[in-house]
Amino acid sequence: MGLWGKRDDMIVHQADPYNAEPPRGALADRMLTPVEAFYGRNHGPIPVIDPDAWRLRVGGAVAQPAELSLADLKSGYPAQTLTATLQCAGNRRAGLIEVRDIPGEAPWGPGATSTAEWTGVSLARVLAGAGVRPGAGHVAFAGPDVAPDADPPQPFGGSIPLAKALAGEVTLAWAMNGQPLPAMHGAPLRVVVPGYIGARSVKWVEQITVQDTPSGNYFQARVYRLLPADADPRSGGPGVGLSLGAVAVSADILRPDGRSVLPAGPTEVTGYAFAGDDRGIARVDVSADGGHRWRQAELDGEAVPWAWRHWRTIIDLPVGETQITARAWDTTAALQPESAEHVWNPKGYVNNSWARLRVTAR
Amino acid sequence: MGLWGKRDDMIVHQADPYNAEPPRGALADRMLTPVEAFYGRNHGPIPVIDPDAWRLRVGGAVAQPAELSLADLKSGYPAQTLTATLQCAGNRRAGLIEVRDIPGEAPWGPGATSTAEWTGVSLARVLAGAGVRPGAGHVAFAGPDVAPDADPPQPFGGSIPLAKALAGEVTLAWAMNGQPLPAMHGAPLRVVVPGYIGARSVKWVEQITVQDTPSGNYFQARVYRLLPADADPRSGGPGVGLSLGAVAVSADILRPDGRSVLPAGPTEVTGYAFAGDDRGIARVDVSADGGHRWRQAELDGEAVPWAWRHWRTIIDLPVGETQITARAWDTTAALQPESAEHVWNPKGYVNNSWARLRVTAR
Repeated sequence: MGLWGKRDDMIVHQADPYNAEPPRGALADRMLTPVEAFYGRNHGPIPVIDPDAWRLRVGGAVAQPAELSLADLKSGYPAQTLTATLQCAGNRRAGLIEVRDIPGEAPWGPGATSTAEWTGVSLARVLAGAGVRPGAGHVAFAGPDVAPDADPPQPFGGSIPLAKALAGEVTLAWAMNGQPLPAMHGAPLRVVVPGYIGARSVKWVEQITVQDTPSGNYFQARVYRLLPADADPRSGGPGVGLSLGAVAVSADILRPDGRSVLPAGPTEVTGYAFAGDDRGIARVDVSADGGHRWRQAELDGEAVPWAWRHWRTIIDLPVGETQITARAWDTTAALQPESAEHVWNPKGYVNNSWARLRVTAR
Repeated sequence: MGLWGKRDDMIVHQADPYNAEPPRGALADRMLTPVEAFYGRNHGPIPVIDPDAWRLRVGGAVAQPAELSLADLKSGYPAQTLTATLQCAGNRRAGLIEVRDIPGEAPWGPGATSTAEWTGVSLARVLAGAGVRPGAGHVAFAGPDVAPDADPPQPFGGSIPLAKALAGEVTLAWAMNGQPLPAMHGAPLRVVVPGYIGARSVKWVEQITVQDTPSGNYFQARVYRLLPADADPRSGGPGVGLSLGAVAVSADILRPDGRSVLPAGPTEVTGYAFAGDDRGIARVDVSADGGHRWRQAELDGEAVPWAWRHWRTIIDLPVGETQITARAWDTTAALQPESAEHVWNPKGYVNNSWARLRVTAR
């Protein structure tokens, strides 16, 4: 399994840098995604870092800049464990590519979404220890993984608003599902920003900077931005389009997976739904007739803050082809937009349109 | 102008209790809605309260229950002034009624949304003064206005999560746009819950109760809930449907208003867009061909937290009938759902589907 364990059936969009998602079924039914099935999204090579030599520098607009070892973090702050879903901004891009091609971007399915239990320390406590100076507005993270596709080449980085950084749930994590964090997922330490696009959960974090403005890093300033449909995908930069942060409500179908012919008759349909910020999933509807009639799916278990919600229902599958449609509502009554055509954008982000899966039965 | 000033051209859905909204044009262009144009939504008669005799009782799970006069509030806490948009959960219900009738509910247009500058004290400070006991989760408000249509008849009330109540922006307001609050809008004191449905901004508030559970008041427990399309509208109660709180992204067109024939040619289209929680409006698109091609509208001024955003663009109006469509995206890239049919629900809440206005030019 090399430096990081992974399933043999991962859907690998790119080998180097490694970008892969699990098949739909690997995400079904269980709250926590096994580490070996957790999606990997990288812009550069996976760095392998000596945890003893590694230090986290905390600087910028703070009273007491610090350089912290892993031992300093573990002894200096109480550990916190929290379940959080991470979702790549490109999750479900394949549905946008069906509308119109998006050159140079990987055709992610619904598997660029995974959930783990993260253990580490609260970023808020580390910042309190450093003493944030009044007037600061953002907290920037940077790793060591130089991305060759950045312009100019630079380590991956990004930032979040200070209010989010101080909210307590943002975690500097050294463990994932009770195991030491693998190199693939950011060892020795990664940021986990619950409810935000995965890109803000910077892996192998080495530098935390409190500052006035959002990060000027290529991946914050230029890449992860929602552009209008008619914009040049090479455009970007502060003020161009929408800098992605908190995640809008989305959902997809996990079982069946559309890859084999099913027996006609009553069939269980399951999936996930996820809403960012501090929103929850209020309802999931499923249709077997293209959206004319809907039935409410059952939501599994109890709502867990910052985590997806699995859902399930039974539909009666006729012989032939059926399009299963699913749509989620968040706790503010926000409904997913209907059509991938409506949300199409030149870089292929945030396809949170209704989930549609074609299945065949006989 | 009687007890409260109001425009002569208000669209009165019901005279008693008074329920009325301004015409579209009255909301156009300006951040603050004049008091006389601000929508009125009432479930009972407007109480006229002697401000000298009035007291606010703060109780429930607090260390020090209090009974506060207006003078106590004004001298005990620093005043805060904040611009906030209020939006009725039934705003734009008329668009749902076009899909399918909703008996007994008023056909609100887009005017059940208005914005004022509110002056008062922060609820968070008043609660800090009373000392919230650990373990509480909700803050309930009640007024004196007995609603005859409640079952059983009871004063209007509702609650918000404690975290929202402590967030600072929730205001106990005695002034509106720099003027003393009129009786119509809740004098001597009303709650203003920025980013939440208007029903939580309880007018003529007399009782604030810190408690474990959401308010059991008829209007919280049974009325303002989003039910699935096939539910009985008389159903309700805790656990049935979605208890409405933070507002999902919405928008509508204010000018032209579709009431007169326009000259063909370049025509300015303006409107508002609003997103609840702490979300902002990121973009508004306008189409003059039913949603095939979109142009981005200009957003007026700077974003103001908790307030709507006005927008404008020019379209070239051909001779004949044109359907103007507008749709907004919030700062998490959430897009309004396309169709009123998709969001139709038996009580007619949260029609946040795309705005559509038919205009005729010659």
